[in-house]
This record gives sequence, structure tokens and C-alpha cells, in this order.
Amino acid sequence: MDYVYGPGRNHLFVPGPVNIPEQVLRAMNRNNEDYRSPAIPAMTKTLLEDVKKIFKTTSGTPFLIPTTGTGAWESALTNTLSPGDRTISFLIGQFSLLWIDQQQRLKFNVDVVESEWGRGADLDILESKLASDTAHTIKAICIVHNETATGVTNNLATVRKILDAYQHPALLLVDGVSSICALDFRMDEWGVDVALTGSQKALSLPTGLGIVCASPKALEASKTAKSVRVFFDWNDYLKFYKLGTYWPYTPSIQLLYGLRAALDLIFEEGLDDVILRHKRLGTATRLAVEAWGLKNCTQKEEWYSDTVTAVVVPPNIDSSEIVRRAWKRYNLSLGLGLNKVAGKVFRIGHLGHLNELQLLGCLAGVEMILKDVGYPVKLGSGVAAASAYLQNNIPLIPSRI
Amino acid sequence: MDYVYGPGRNHLFVPGPVNIPEQVLRAMNRNNEDYRSPAIPAMTKTLLEDVKKIFKTTSGTPFLIPTTGTGAWESALTNTLSPGDRTISFLIGQFSLLWIDQQQRLKFNVDVVESEWGRGADLDILESKLASDTAHTIKAICIVHNETATGVTNNLATVRKILDAYQHPALLLVDGVSSICALDFRMDEWGVDVALTGSQKALSLPTGLGIVCASPKALEASKTAKSVRVFFDWNDYLKFYKLGTYWPYTPSIQLLYGLRAALDLIFEEGLDDVILRHKRLGTATRLAVEAWGLKNCTQKEEWYSDTVTAVVVPPNIDSSEIVRRAWKRYNLSLGLGLNKVAGKVFRIGHLGHLNELQLLGCLAGVEMILKDVGYPVKLGSGVAAASAYLQNNIPLIPSRI
Amino acid sequence: MDYVYGPGRNHLFVPGPVNIPEQVLRAMNRNNEDYRSPAIPAMTKTLLEDVKKIFKTTSGTPFLIPTTGTGAWESALTNTLSPGDRTISFLIGQFSLLWIDQQQRLKFNVDVVESEWGRGADLDILESKLASDTAHTIKAICIVHNETATGVTNNLATVRKILDAYQHPALLLVDGVSSICALDFRMDEWGVDVALTGSQKALSLPTGLGIVCASPKALEASKTAKSVRVFFDWNDYLKFYKLGTYWPYTPSIQLLYGLRAALDLIFEEGLDDVILRHKRLGTATRLAVEAWGLKNCTQKEEWYSDTVTAVVVPPNIDSSEIVRRAWKRYNLSLGLGLNKVAGKVFRIGHLGHLNELQLLGCLAGVEMILKDVGYPVKLGSGVAAASAYLQNNIPLIPSRI
Amino acid sequence: MDYVYGPGRNHLFVPGPVNIPEQVLRAMNRNNEDYRSPAIPAMTKTLLEDVKKIFKTTSGTPFLIPTTGTGAWESALTNTLSPGDRTISFLIGQFSLLWIDQQQRLKFNVDVVESEWGRGADLDILESKLASDTAHTIKAICIVHNETATGVTNNLATVRKILDAYQHPALLLVDGVSSICALDFRMDEWGVDVALTGSQKALSLPTGLGIVCASPKALEASKTAKSVRVFFDWNDYLKFYKLGTYWPYTPSIQLLYGLRAALDLIFEEGLDDVILRHKRLGTATRLAVEAWGLKNCTQKEEWYSDTVTAVVVPPNIDSSEIVRRAWKRYNLSLGLGLNKVAGKVFRIGHLGHLNELQLLGCLAGVEMILKDVGYPVKLGSGVAAASAYLQNNIPLIPSRI
Repeated sequence: MDYVYGPGRNHLFVPGPVNIPEQVLRAMNRNNEDYRSPAIPAMTKTLLEDVKKIFKTTSGTPFLIPTTGTGAWESALTNTLSPGDRTISFLIGQFSLLWIDQQQRLKFNVDVVESEWGRGADLDILESKLASDTAHTIKAICIVHNETATGVTNNLATVRKILDAYQHPALLLVDGVSSICALDFRMDEWGVDVALTGSQKALSLPTGLGIVCASPKALEASKTAKSVRVFFDWNDYLKFYKLGTYWPYTPSIQLLYGLRAALDLIFEEGLDDVILRHKRLGTATRLAVEAWGLKNCTQKEEWYSDTVTAVVVPPNIDSSEIVRRAWKRYNLSLGLGLNKVAGKVFRIGHLGHLNELQLLGCLAGVEMILKDVGYPVKLGSGVAAASAYLQNNIPLIPSRI
Repeated sequence: MDYVYGPGRNHLFVPGPVNIPEQVLRAMNRNNEDYRSPAIPAMTKTLLEDVKKIFKTTSGTPFLIPTTGTGAWESALTNTLSPGDRTISFLIGQFSLLWIDQQQRLKFNVDVVESEWGRGADLDILESKLASDTAHTIKAICIVHNETATGVTNNLATVRKILDAYQHPALLLVDGVSSICALDFRMDEWGVDVALTGSQKALSLPTGLGIVCASPKALEASKTAKSVRVFFDWNDYLKFYKLGTYWPYTPSIQLLYGLRAALDLIFEEGLDDVILRHKRLGTATRLAVEAWGLKNCTQKEEWYSDTVTAVVVPPNIDSSEIVRRAWKRYNLSLGLGLNKVAGKVFRIGHLGHLNELQLLGCLAGVEMILKDVGYPVKLGSGVAAASAYLQNNIPLIPSRI
Repeated sequence: MDYVYGPGRNHLFVPGPVNIPEQVLRAMNRNNEDYRSPAIPAMTKTLLEDVKKIFKTTSGTPFLIPTTGTGAWESALTNTLSPGDRTISFLIGQFSLLWIDQQQRLKFNVDVVESEWGRGADLDILESKLASDTAHTIKAICIVHNETATGVTNNLATVRKILDAYQHPALLLVDGVSSICALDFRMDEWGVDVALTGSQKALSLPTGLGIVCASPKALEASKTAKSVRVFFDWNDYLKFYKLGTYWPYTPSIQLLYGLRAALDLIFEEGLDDVILRHKRLGTATRLAVEAWGLKNCTQKEEWYSDTVTAVVVPPNIDSSEIVRRAWKRYNLSLGLGLNKVAGKVFRIGHLGHLNELQLLGCLAGVEMILKDVGYPVKLGSGVAAASAYLQNNIPLIPSRI
Repeated sequence: MDYVYGPGRNHLFVPGPVNIPEQVLRAMNRNNEDYRSPAIPAMTKTLLEDVKKIFKTTSGTPFLIPTTGTGAWESALTNTLSPGDRTISFLIGQFSLLWIDQQQRLKFNVDVVESEWGRGADLDILESKLASDTAHTIKAICIVHNETATGVTNNLATVRKILDAYQHPALLLVDGVSSICALDFRMDEWGVDVALTGSQKALSLPTGLGIVCASPKALEASKTAKSVRVFFDWNDYLKFYKLGTYWPYTPSIQLLYGLRAALDLIFEEGLDDVILRHKRLGTATRLAVEAWGLKNCTQKEEWYSDTVTAVVVPPNIDSSEIVRRAWKRYNLSLGLGLNKVAGKVFRIGHLGHLNELQLLGCLAGVEMILKDVGYPVKLGSGVAAASAYLQNNIPLIPSRI
């Protein structure tokens, strides 16, 4: 029942779904259970408490929704906004584009702020729009923390600063799908009103949980939001939270135990150390790209992403061919370029349960593939650049000191 | 990481989530994969083809949605209906009640036909409503095939007959959550327009897939249906079906492989033999209930359910106490009575990956619990009645002949 | 890759290998590891310490040998005895017979004390042999604690009493394969010199570990024992124990983690409660056999085994047919009658990770099979007798109170 | 229950136990079964037939013994030889040393032919000894195909040629622990009389199966061999082979299913392609070592091993420190130097379920460690050398073309 066996491990470097730790696979290797027995609520209680830590919030209310990131988006929007509401939304790549598409289909009045793909959200335009919005027609700012298609990280602290400067009451809704648990994210400090991620990203679980966290202000907004919603309605969850049974409908028993294990691993490593590890992996990748003489799709250092790097290929090369060869010859899974950058970039996802030697194996593979497709890379050059940085920066594994 | 360890197996007899076969657990015990590689579409293609067989449809279009049964309901409704549309919906227990609640919150004009809990859908009223609806204001009939809260199976063939008798064009939307893959269900023959189930029911998987199947007429309706939808929009799937990549957003790799294994097991046993097995399990359970001198919540034989039996307890006994004791003392998980029948019934789920000796162990347990709570049952009586029937009816296991 | 699929769970009631807890399967679901890293010795240390508890010894030295029960026998014998040494060995069933065969092939001078199959070791003869052995030619008493073929438990406390009465220095070697972790076993109190078990019995693991525990006197004997041995030589282990690396050759990483989990579960339940649970399961089984009007192969109550019951079938019935039908029709695995009792008994193993409702399911199955093969059993009778006893005796599950 | 968690995968490069394919882990993730049901013999039959293919024998008789490599050695020796028999045995490293130690303890008259560690078996001495042994006092030649401690592969074809040249009837006993399924091994063609391996080596399973294959001549020898043996006695197996039940004692159900999966994967890749893959991995490793300016412990190309490379470190460096750092800082498991070469070499195991990018990740790690410990390696140099070779030699994965 394996469709395309290849010897040795698959090297999974798409920016999601990512590698699952063996500990999590073990935790999930179990029969179903009655989710109405006392066991599941008892565990759920710890999950809701602990999941707040990865959002860095104490005041937020988390929801573990049996859905994907797309569903988590919908949950964030429909619970806080009403049809016709004006949102400011930044189009900087394929995933922000899809979110904007969803906002439009949900009948919001979307004020799209577009940047060239490879650049971050244009916060100057945000500022000018807020400045002129004295009537507070803007109900929400919708922004991806990290655009997975281009490897661009937006500066949320600045977004908050601008909102505060104008004392603007707009909600701040953040797609943290490829950031939370990997990049520095601070829900409370940055005044994020709804933040969300998916289980298959930095949490390193299978797909299946949309994790949404709502600020008190977002919860307040949900009381008057007129978007039609049932499956995604927070209120159904809140009702069961009060009852102490937690679930309005059947959760995945396996994913709950998996999430428990995933959080335990993150806390064992230390959330801040997890973030530092991603910084190392991101830096090492960028150094390799530079050594290969290739360009990062991300145009400025301030937007560099520590979870995914989109590498621009020379015009005579089709980046899709690189992805195909990676899979066919090296058992390596890289990310395709999407939409506007299709054929022009390939992506190296470096998030989740991943360490430095795994990345170096991937980089060595990319070098061979580049050569395969005719790009005159010096073999070993990227690995050398990455290693030179890593060798001085990888800390001892705490449990093994 | 087990909250409430008890020695020996948990005897899981809630009507979902149900026991997962070891073969399926094995198939799901795997790392994530790139869902954009050629492997996943290749497998998805076989899944979509094969999943139609469990609906007994050749003309339907299936959708494997990362959601629960509640989400599958929402997918069925929002893709085919517009706000204000009149639906006829039968309220016969907690799950039909919840579906009706959803229909109302989605702004349909729900014409509720209520029956006493324990009775099936009142098809005489359906007939009279259809008879008088010459203007065809009724856009859809919404009916649960099997009401999980009371153990009542509705007669869908008759529903179709009535619709045909009046040549009424209303869509027929069927919740098959606790029926499909366990009860006789015939999408094409009965002219069902949307049928749906959840992975954690008779398919014996973890929760996480809402499986929805749409007739050509339903697909046609989806082109004009004005209900707002994004995550649940069939159109996004159809777009990717055409591309041959199948997934508008990230599926659970594990559930796809699990579904592959689950379908393989069902076809190995034979779908009709699976249904016969459920008939045996249902009959045996009812014979035991009768032998105990207790009443089935289902009032007439025509509505008897082969997937779940709700047992009415004497007025002096609280059925919740039975469920609690089952779990605390016997490692047995039974279903609670819900809403109107809370405290009055407990439920024995007998669906999915289950055989006769497992059921007899459960029945023996129920007998002891009944005695525990003061009901003067004759120990062994239910088991004897069930065994007498089963001993004459269990076929040899084909692979072992 | 499943040779003989049948729906629902396999009901595994052979007296080994037995059902593995999900927790143990999870713990074993892992990649290999370097057994020379610090991790494996650290874990091994805890295993060696904790495994002594299931032998109820503080002075014994345990060995975790990658072998089966047969290998554990060989380890016990070759490390303590020299060719030509006189042993007294009790032949009471197939497994004691095989052990005697091994002793003979290892060139010991085996003084066989035979009992009718179904009776325990004849301790009167032991006494008379010891009484007359003033020259101490007897070097060891070899005895199975529980004869798995007939369901007979020998009284080891009495053996020790007799040895002490004659102040006889013979070593006491005990096969505890189907007793340790299920029956009351007290290595130190009973002065057992070597005790052994296999992982696939009451420890509820896969096959693959022979667990042998040696008293200081046995260790002393090993210094002069002249039996040729290498793989089974305790000395190689002791050398590595001193080094703190523990393993003279590669252990199964998976079984070590599995053993860790198995011990954790046993200690969570409480070893004495585990033993009480087996007492309940054994008693319930015997009550059912009695209710069926059948005879226990074990001739006297003092020898009743709480881990396996050999049921004598009427002369006109072939017990192998019962075992075959159980498997072919009911997905139930029963034990065959072996050697002298082939065709005459079938065996119900009730040891390891097992609870009361599982057993009642098995008993209900046996009733149907008995009827299948023409024995006029009253269906439900055995379950009723067992339930009547169990209903008054099963305690609440501590973690769920 | 993980003693020393580190983020990301453990990079397992000890020469056994090696990485287990997910497919094999899945196959082993199962409950116990009755090994006396028809299912297990049916599978065993296929295993015995198929396992012969990895030995390249049609006339051999395989034994799947629940033991380790050490036990497999003992099985090979005790079934074919009698105490006092003269063997010629080559001491070229730690594992041949241990085998010789076993031979001596089993009371054979071992004629040890020693080579410097890093050199292969001295076949000139073999020739002279055979030449002078006209009385045929030499009963067996015992040789490791691949010495795991030094990475030296002996030339078995030459051994056979020499034996044939002198028409010497000595048995040829081969330790193929770190060769079979990875190196070119031809039991029938080379006239090997007993060959053996362990499940945790190139078969990529957990430890627990000693796989021994006996030629007709070896089986004939077993009839008169006087070494005492019970657990390891082939005759017990042969008796059960005839009965068609196959097992003299309880096998590990999990390992049988695991072996089935492992063989299926090997045949899917193609045994010869598996061997070619190991040749690539070995060559790439040696090129890296050369690029680092370090010496291979193996002194001549004719002995180069494609399953393990022992790398000699400069005199001022302790190779154990390299192994320690690999594990503590990089989650990389390398092999220690053993005995005579302790502190002087570290070993890279490159056998089993492994591909090129995994190896390159390891090599990149070794470079950083070398730098960590003060060796002036040029980072990237080894990876570059290995990549240059691999990029031209890795074939497409057949299932993905």
C-alpha cells in the first residue's frame, strides 16, 4: 500500500505537511475512544491550557477545530465579521491571495494592498489607510505572518504599532500557519485578535486540526458578527467549554493525543529554543543559496523567513523540473513555485521537527539537482557555507549534556 | 500519556467513534508526505472511485472533506440550497435535531416534521406536504437514514416512492452517518441527491473525514445555490479534480492511507456481507434486550436499527449511572441517553469493525451492570438469547475455510 | 499482508503469546537506536532494577536474554550445572516433558518424577528422594511453577519446605513461564535459585526476551558449572554489567522500550492486583466449565491454575475440532491439547493483558462452539456462572474512581 | 519514555542496528497471534522460500532463530562440529575475535590466522595450511565476510577456489552479519556451507532473528556433530518443517511479519540494485574520507567494505570524542572504535535502509565534528567529493519514473 517506494527515508522539505516526530506517531497509534468519557475532557483541558503558550497568550481563548488552515481562516473571519465589513488585506503571495479570495467570497469588502511577490506587506499603505479612516470603517486587518509561497515574514509588531498610533479599533487577524511554533510570535504583546495555525505545520502533526486563538476583543466581536456559520461557530465550543465536555462534535482522538505529545516535545526543547533552531535552519539555508549564486525570492533581509526559503532559479531553468527530479531521483520533496512564481522558484521548507544534519542532506541534494538541470553550481559550496555557520552555532542537546 | 489506564482492552460500544482495525492503524502509522507529489493524487483517484461503491452509486461525485459529520451536513446543505429555501426535515432524535438547528442557522425555511423519539420519520405527513406543494416550494427533504440517538432507521425507499408519486423535484439529502457501510444504503436506486457519512462510524477510521456524495442533480443545484461557503464549497474540489491534483487544501495523508485500508477490508469481506454482519449484531442485541425484560427505545420493528440500540431503563434507574459504571468497573464504553431521553436510555453501538464475540462480551457486561444498579436481570439470559440466534447464523470466515 | 482476515478483533485465548496492550505496542513502534549510546544503558539499568520486582526478589540478578522460554531454560541449566549432574525433574505435561528432554540432551542425569497429566508434581516422592540423598547427589530440583499444557500449578512453597526440612543444598530451578506476573510467585521467600519467564506470557509483550533471574547461590554455582555455553553464559552479561554498558551483544531496542512500558503498566495496576485479576479470571473460567458439565483437566483444586484452564471434552468429541471451529467461525484462538491430551482437551489461556468482559466473550464463544460440535450445552450457562461470581468481585478501576 | 530527546531525526550510522523502513515498522505494529493457527505456518513457508534468495541459494535450508548474531554463530558451529574439531579461523578485528572466542569456549581446536587490523584474512596462510593438511584434520574454515570493526571485506570466492584447488572437504562457515543483503554474496556459487546474518543489519529489522542457512553438506554434518545443543539444534526445526508447523518454540509474530515486509521491499528494489546502492554509499563515503585527508582503516582497495567505513583519526584526536559529540550535538550516531582500534577509528555504518542524501547529511555532520575536535578539515570538502561521484551515478527510483 505504498504507491511509490524508494529506498531510504523520504527527505520531506515542503513547507507543510512536515516531518512528524516518532514520539507523536507513537502517541497517535491507538484505537478510538469514547470522547464523552471523563478521559478526553481531562486531556482536552490540558491541551487548551498549553496550546495558549505557543501563541504566547494568557488572555486568549483557543479552539481546536477538526479542519485545515483554510477552515481556520474561515473560523477567524466568520466569527468576528459581518458581510459587507471592510477589511484591509495584504496580497503578497499565493496564500494571502487565497485568504483574500475567501474574504471576498464571504462577502466582506476587502481592501487589498498588493506587494510584489517577494516583498512583505506594505505597511506604509496600511498607515495611510488607517490615518484616513477616522470613521473606523475598517473592521479588520488581515495579514499572514509568514507567506509560505514566497518565504516572506511580515513585521506584526509594526502593524500593532501603527494601529496603536492611530488608536484604531480594527481587529488584527493573523494567519500564523507557517509561523506559530517556529517564528517569534506574541499574541498578547502584539495585540493580535485572532491567530491561527494548522497542525501539519510547525507543530509537526498530521493535517486535521485548525488551531484558532481569539482575544477577548475577538470574542466580544463574535457576539455581534453576522456572518453565517455553524460548523465554525465559536459559540458552540464555548457552550461545551462551560459544560466541561469541551466538544460540540466528535474530535479526532488520535490528534488530541498527538497534540499532547507534540506540545510536550516543544516544551521539553523549550519554545524559545525551538524558535532559535528555526533561525539556525533559516540562516543556514540562506547562506547556501547565496553560495550557489542564486537569489532568494525574498527581496530584503527584514522579510527573511526562518521557515521557508523560496529560491529563484535562472530564467533558463524550470523550477518544476527541479522539484520533479528531487522526488524521482533523490527521494527529496521540495515545494513547487505557485501561481505567479510557478516555474521560477522552488521552495525549501525548514520548519517543524527537523535538525541541522537533515537540512544539510537536503542542501547537498539540491546541489546535485541543480547540476542535473544544468546550473553550474560548485558541489559542496552550499553545504560548506551552511556548515561554517552551523558548526559555530549548534548548541549541545540539553538532555544529552 | 494515558489518562485512565485499565487492564485489558477497552470495550468500545458507543455508536462512534468505533473500533479501528489493526490493519487500518498500521496503514496510518506513517510520516507526512508531500501531497503534491504524484503519489497522493494516484491514491486519491482510487479512493474516489472506490468510495462510490459504499454509497452504491455510479453517477455520484464524492468529496473527502477534512471535517466531521457536522461539517459534512454543512457541505450538503450549503452547496445545494439558498437562504430562505424551504426544507422538510424530520425531528426524531438528537442528531436530526442538531441537523435541523444547523439548517435554521443557515437561514433555511425549515418545515420540521416531528415524531416522538423512538419513532421514525412520519412519512404520511411528508406525503401530505408534498401533495399540497404543487408550487414546488419545497426545495429539499432532509432526513437521517439512522437516528443515532434512538436507534431508529428510516425507510428511504419509501421516501423516494412518495417523491416519485408526486413527481416532486425536491432534493433528497440524507445523513448516512450511522448507516453507510453498515446498513443497506442505495444512493442511485433510491435517488438520493446528497448522502454523507463520517470516517469514524462504520468505516472504522479515526474522526477527520466527512465523506459526501452528490448526485448529478445535486451538482447542478450547486451551480445556483446561494448559500455562502468557501471551505465546504464543492466547486473548489471540482476544480482540482479536473487538474488531477484533487486537493484544494492539505488532506490528512494518514487518513487517506487509512481510508484505502478500510475500503480494502470492506471489499475483502464484501459490502453485502458487512451489512449482513450488522444485521446479525443488531438482531442479537435486540434479542438480549428482550430477554432482559427491557424495552427497545425504537417503537416498531420496521424502524429497528442494526447499528445502534437504545435500551430503555426502568423509571427508577438512571441510565447515566449504567454508562458510568460500565466505564469505571468493566472498561466498557456505552452511549449515554441524549437530551429528551437523557437518563432514560443507554445505547449499545454495534457498528463498524466488530464481531459477535465482542458483542457477547459487551452484553455479558451490561447484564452485570444492570444487576449492579438494582435491576433484577437473570445473569446470562441476554447472552443466551443472543447466542441461540448467532450460533445458527454466523458464517465461516471466508479466508479461513 | 494479512493472511487470514476476519472482521472484528481476534479473540486471543491461547496461553501465550498473549494480548499486547496498546501502550506497549506504542512504545515499541520505533526505529532502531545505537545500543552503545548512553540512552540504552540508562534505560537498561531501570529495567534490571524493576524486573526484580516481578520475581519478588531483592537479592537476585536478572538477565534479559534475546531468546525464547526454551532458551531461558537452557540458560538456567547450563549456567548452574555440569554434565552428569543429577537433577530431579517432574514430568506432569508437555512443557515439563520438553524441559526434561532438554536436560537429558544437555547430558544431565535426570531423575524423572512422573505424574498423571492433570496432577501436580508428586512432592511425596521428592521428599523420599531427598530423604535418602544424604550424599547430596541431587544437584538441582527442576520444576515448572505452572504446567501450561494441563493448567496445573505446583506448590513451590512446599518444595522449599521439604528442601529445608532435609537441609538439602540442591538448587531450585523454576520454570515460571506461565506464572510469573500472573500467579503469586516469591523468589526470595521460596528460596528459588533460578526463575525464568518469557516476554510473550504474562508480561504481555511479543516473543523475544527470555527473562532469567539468578539467586546469589545460583551465581556462585555458575562459577564452577561445566556445561558448555557461550550465548547463554551469564558471565558475559556480568562483565558488561560491571562496565555499565550492560549488553554483550545487540538487544532488541523495541523490546527494551516495550518491557519498560509493560512494567510501568504492571506497577500502575499493582502487581498484587494483577495477580488478583488472574485469580478472578481463573475462577470465572472454572465456574463456566463446571456449569457446562465439563471436567477440568486439573484433578484437584490445590493445583488449579489461574492462567490456563484445560477443558476435558467428552470422548465422542475431538477437541482439535473445537479449536479449528473457534478460529474459522468465531475469530477465537484457543489452545490445542498437546501430546497425551491431544484431542482430549482444549485450553483457554486467561493470562496477561486481559479483562473480565474479554473472557466472557470467549466463554460465550466456547458455548456456541460446543453446541456446534454436538455437545448439549445450555447456551449462556457458563457465562451466567462466571458473571455471578465476577459481578460481586470486580473492583472499580483505580484510575477511574 | 524517551530518555534523551533531541529535535529532528536521529541520524543512525552505526553499522547495526540500522534504520528500519516505515513499511516494516507498520508491518510489525500488531498484536500477538496464535502461532499454531494456519496463518503463521502459511506465512513462514513463504519466508523460508524467499529468505533463500538473499543468500543466493537454492539448495540451502534456512533457519529463522529467535536470537542474535552471536546465537547464529553458535548455531552454525554446534550443528556442524564436535568438540576438539580443528577449525581455521581468521582474526582480523573485534567481531572475528569474538567468534574465535566462542569457538574456543565451545572446545574446538581453533587454528587462528591473525592479520593486522585493517587487513583482510591472510589467504596465503590458508592455502599453506590446507596444502599441508593432507590428513584433513581441518574440519571447518570460519571466516567473516565483512569485519564490522574495521570495514574489511574478505574475498570468499578466493577461499572457495583455494579449498577446491586442494579438494579439501572442510566446511566453509561464513559470518555474513554485515554483508548479506548489502554485499555481493553467493552461497551456492561459492560453496558456502553455513552462512548467517542478523535481522538488525542489512535486512533493516529490529534485532531478534538470527538467520542461518545450511548447505546439504552442512545438514549432513549435523547428523554426526557431537557439540551439545538444544535451543540451537537444527534438528528440532527440521522435525517441525516436516510437520508443516515450522516452529519448535514460539517465534516473534511481529518479526515474522516484519521479515515478510523487509523481503518484499528488497525484492521490489531488486537485490542486485540493493547491492549497487551499497556500492554507491561505500564509494561516496571513501571519497569523502579521502577529501578530508584522513585514512581508511582498511589498508587495501580489495578489502574495502561497502557497508561500513572505519576512519582513522590523527594521533592527537580521540575518536571516542568524535562519537560522543556526534550524539550530543548533532543527533548523529557513529560507531566507536573497538578494542585494538579504540580511540583510533570511528565508524560510519552505511548499510540497510539508507539513501544518498541521508549519507550526505551524515558526512556534513562528520565534517563539523572534525572541526569541533580540532582537525583542520575544509568544510564541505567531503560532501563535495561524495556528491561529485553520486550525482553521476544515482539512478532514478524505478517506481517514480
